Amino acid sequence: MRVLGIDPGSQSTGFGLIDSAESGYGVRTFGTIKPSKRLPFHLKLHEIGREVGEIIAAHAPDEVAIESPFYAQNIKTAIALGQVRGAVLVAVAASGCALFEYSALEIKKAVSGYGQAEKQQVKAMVKALLKIEGEVETDASDALAAAICHLNTRMFQKSVEESAGGGRR
Amino acid sequence: MRVLGIDPGSQSTGFGLIDSAESGYGVRTFGTIKPSKRLPFHLKLHEIGREVGEIIAAHAPDEVAIESPFYAQNIKTAIALGQVRGAVLVAVAASGCALFEYSALEIKKAVSGYGQAEKQQVKAMVKALLKIEGEVETDASDALAAAICHLNTRMFQKSVEESAGGGRR
Repeated sequence: MRVLGIDPGSQSTGFGLIDSAESGYGVRTFGTIKPSKRLPFHLKLHEIGREVGEIIAAHAPDEVAIESPFYAQNIKTAIALGQVRGAVLVAVAASGCALFEYSALEIKKAVSGYGQAEKQQVKAMVKALLKIEGEVETDASDALAAAICHLNTRMFQKSVEESAGGGRR
Repeated sequence: MRVLGIDPGSQSTGFGLIDSAESGYGVRTFGTIKPSKRLPFHLKLHEIGREVGEIIAAHAPDEVAIESPFYAQNIKTAIALGQVRGAVLVAVAASGCALFEYSALEIKKAVSGYGQAEKQQVKAMVKALLKIEGEVETDASDALAAAICHLNTRMFQKSVEESAGGGRR
């Protein structure tokens, strides 16, 4: 199974693709989308949506995971973040990929076992879990964390289904 | 000149198309976009974007006017509004139409002469200016108000250019 995690942000949108493998997780690619600062805002949004669509078309994830929004510093940043998130969600919807949302708490717990973990702790755990040695931008590690959270949920569901199936035999 | 005004909202997105005519304004169409409540949120956004794209394709406005966001009751509604606005902006960007933003103050002043006008006053003035007799939903009248504001700005710019051109002769 291949999962695309996305972390929309007002400055940059992180993405990370992970395959579930027998031996754990396999990272396919990750990075950030940063449209040119010179573009008018609506063309920046269009660019973000276009790039998300291209990533989905190039890597054909089975499912997409994204953090549920619940926090922003103020109304202005909340609207800005919402607009980027809207552009991303439209691109996912257009691709036909199934979308799954997780709270920040669920995502932090999935990678660090602790819902109140700091961003740097989350990044360190993501890098350790995925055996990434170089630098990872925070928005990209947040996106990878969302993908890990979704893969863990899927693997847990599968094990529950298998043991339930075993019990019925 | 034909202008499409759009008023994105978390519940419904208003739109209104106005032509500038010798005798004033000519309303082409107006209404609201309300995606099915049963759709998952990202598919609602996709639907809103698709409908905006269809309105632009069907009526070929020269330019699009939208209110700049600056207010929301709380962070949650700000993110929700932002997401709808993001879907709308992506659709406008995809159409290639030029986009113009106006503050709520500018729009209210354009239709009522008063920046602090209430929504119902704005609606009454929009209906009077455009000679609309039936009911108009508030989101649609807000969209028509944005279009009126942009047409007024354009007509003012044109008259300034003409008098400047006259001065040079």
